[in-house]
Amino acid sequence: MKTRIGIYGYGNLGRGVENALRQNPDMELVAVFTRRDPASLKIATEGAKVLSAADVEKYADDIDVMVICGGSATDLPVQTPALAKYFCVIDSFDTHAKIPEHFAKVDTAAKEGGKTAMISVGWDPGMFSVNRLYAGAILPDGKDYTFWGKGVSQGHSDAIRRIEGVLDAKQYTIPVQEALDAARSGSNPELTTRQKHLRECFVVAAEGADLSRIEKEIKEMPNYFADYDTTVHFISAEELRRDHSGIPHGGFVIRSGRTGADLENNHIIEYSLKLDSNPEFTASVIVAYARALHRMYTEGAVGCKTVFDVPPAYLSPKSYLEIISSLL
Amino acid sequence: MKTRIGIYGYGNLGRGVENALRQNPDMELVAVFTRRDPASLKIATEGAKVLSAADVEKYADDIDVMVICGGSATDLPVQTPALAKYFCVIDSFDTHAKIPEHFAKVDTAAKEGGKTAMISVGWDPGMFSVNRLYAGAILPDGKDYTFWGKGVSQGHSDAIRRIEGVLDAKQYTIPVQEALDAARSGSNPELTTRQKHLRECFVVAAEGADLSRIEKEIKEMPNYFADYDTTVHFISAEELRRDHSGIPHGGFVIRSGRTGADLENNHIIEYSLKLDSNPEFTASVIVAYARALHRMYTEGAVGCKTVFDVPPAYLSPKSYLEIISSLL
Repeated sequence: MKTRIGIYGYGNLGRGVENALRQNPDMELVAVFTRRDPASLKIATEGAKVLSAADVEKYADDIDVMVICGGSATDLPVQTPALAKYFCVIDSFDTHAKIPEHFAKVDTAAKEGGKTAMISVGWDPGMFSVNRLYAGAILPDGKDYTFWGKGVSQGHSDAIRRIEGVLDAKQYTIPVQEALDAARSGSNPELTTRQKHLRECFVVAAEGADLSRIEKEIKEMPNYFADYDTTVHFISAEELRRDHSGIPHGGFVIRSGRTGADLENNHIIEYSLKLDSNPEFTASVIVAYARALHRMYTEGAVGCKTVFDVPPAYLSPKSYLEIISSLL
Repeated sequence: MKTRIGIYGYGNLGRGVENALRQNPDMELVAVFTRRDPASLKIATEGAKVLSAADVEKYADDIDVMVICGGSATDLPVQTPALAKYFCVIDSFDTHAKIPEHFAKVDTAAKEGGKTAMISVGWDPGMFSVNRLYAGAILPDGKDYTFWGKGVSQGHSDAIRRIEGVLDAKQYTIPVQEALDAARSGSNPELTTRQKHLRECFVVAAEGADLSRIEKEIKEMPNYFADYDTTVHFISAEELRRDHSGIPHGGFVIRSGRTGADLENNHIIEYSLKLDSNPEFTASVIVAYARALHRMYTEGAVGCKTVFDVPPAYLSPKSYLEIISSLL
C-alpha cells in the first residue's frame, strides 16, 4: 500500500514535492490543499484532488503525511502547529534562531493529536545539519565551516526589489574560494561571514533611475549587504530573464579536526551540494523524510521529530537486506 | 556515569580507539584485551587494565561496549559472533561482499545473549555507506560514484611485499582527476574502476634483485593491479621511511541525480574525506557509534545493527535541545 501524501500550499516547493512524488513509486499524491479557489488551480498529477485549505481537517483519514509548503516567516509558525493535531506533518521551517520555539509548539500539537511531526527538513536546515552533527560527533576536537552558494538568495533579491527605482533583481551568494581553501587546509582559521561570502546583484532599474543611488542603497543596506563585499550589475529585463531565471543553490559543510596521542593528525570531512533547483532539491529531501515519518508513526512515535531522529534506513524504499547488501 | 569501553585487540585500530576515547569525556577505557601476554603490553591510558583475551567473558558486567579491533579476513568473522553473546560489540568488518553473512551470524549471537551489536562501522563501510543511502533516497533517478584515495592500501602494499626480491613497499590508490570531474559534471558517465583510480607503488628491492621482473609481476598481478594503470618507483629503505611512513586515506562519494517535471534539473551531492590517519579516523567513527550503541541497548534494542539504524542524534554527547539549537 502506497504512502498517501497531501501537499498544503502549491508554490515552488509544493510543485517540487509533486514532481518528487512521481520519482517515488511507493508514495502517491492524494490531494493539494490551497488557500486559493481550488477551481483556479491546475496540478500535474492525474487522479489527485485540489481542495480548499479551509476543509483540510475533513481529510484526516485520507492522508498519511501532509507536506506543508508555506513560508517560514509567517505561514509555517501558524500552519504546522495547527495541522499537527490532525495529520502527520512535515515542513521545511528554516528560521534557524526560532527552531526551538517552533519545535516546542509543533511537539505539543502533535502529542495532543497522537501524531508524528517533523520540522526543518530540507538541505539547510536538513542535510547540512545532519552533516554538521555527524562530523562533530566523529571529530570532537575540530571546527565547522558552512558556506552557502553559489546560489540565489530569495530574501536578498526581495530586499533589492524594494528599493525605489528597481524593477527586478536577482542576488547570488558566492563562497570565497580563498576562504574555502583555508577551511580545507587544516589550519582551523577564524573566518567571518563576510570573509566567507560575496554578494553579486543583477538589477533591472527603471528608465531614468539614479543608478549610483541604487547601488549605494544596496551596498549600505544593514544586515543584508553592509557586511559583505557586494557587486552590483545593472542589466536589462531581457538579460535578467535570459541569464538569471533559474533558482540554483548549494553550499559546503566542512569540518576540520584532529586526532592522535598529541592531536598530530588532521582530518577534513566535507559535504557539498550543487543544485540546479533549490526548491526541487528541498522537495526531494522532504519526500524521503515523509517516507521515514510515516514509518515512525506506524511504529508508534508521537510528537515532533527532526532529521536527527531518523535512522537513515527509514529514508529508503529498499528492504533492509537490500540496503546492507548494496550500500554498506 | 561514563560509558565503559573495552578494546579487544591492540593494533593500529585499537590504539586509535584508545586515543579517541580521550577526546570523549563521557566514555572511559576500562580494559584492553590482548591475545599476547598482558604483561608485555603497555597502554597509554592510566587506570585501564590490560587483560588476557582468554578471560574476556569474566568481564561481561564491567564493559558497556566492546570494540573489536581485529582484521576482517580471519579475526572478525570469528571474534564478533563469539563476543556478541556476552557483550554489546562493535566492529569495522569491511569485506563488503560478506557483510550479509557476517550480519546474520552476529545477529543470531547477539539475540542469544540479549545484547546489541553493530558491524561494519568506519568510513567505508560506514560514513560512505550512510552517504550513499542518503543521496540515493533523496535523488532516486541518479547514479553513485565512490572514489578512494589518495591513500595507502594495506592489502595492496602487502601483496607487493610478497613478491620475491621485495623488502618493503607502500601502495597508494589515487582517484583520477578526469573521472572525478566527469562524475561531478552531471553527465552520468559510466566509469570502470580502472578509469577511476591509479595505483602508485613505492618499492624497496633487495640488492641485486631483478627490478624489471618485480615491476612486471606487480603490474600483471590479477585483481590487485592488472586492471589498473600502475606506476612503480624503486626507492631506498631510507626514502620509504622518510616519505611514506604515514597511513593517510580518504575518498569521495558523489551522487548525480535529476529532478523536475521533465527531469530537467541536475543536482550533485558530494561527501569527501581527507584523512591523515586512516585507523585513527576509523576509530573516531567507531567511538561515536559506540555511544549510540550503548544508548540503543539501554533502550531495549536487541540484535545486530548497522550505521543505517542509528538516529544521528544518538552519536552526539549533547542534549537534544542543544543539538536542535546549535546544529539544525
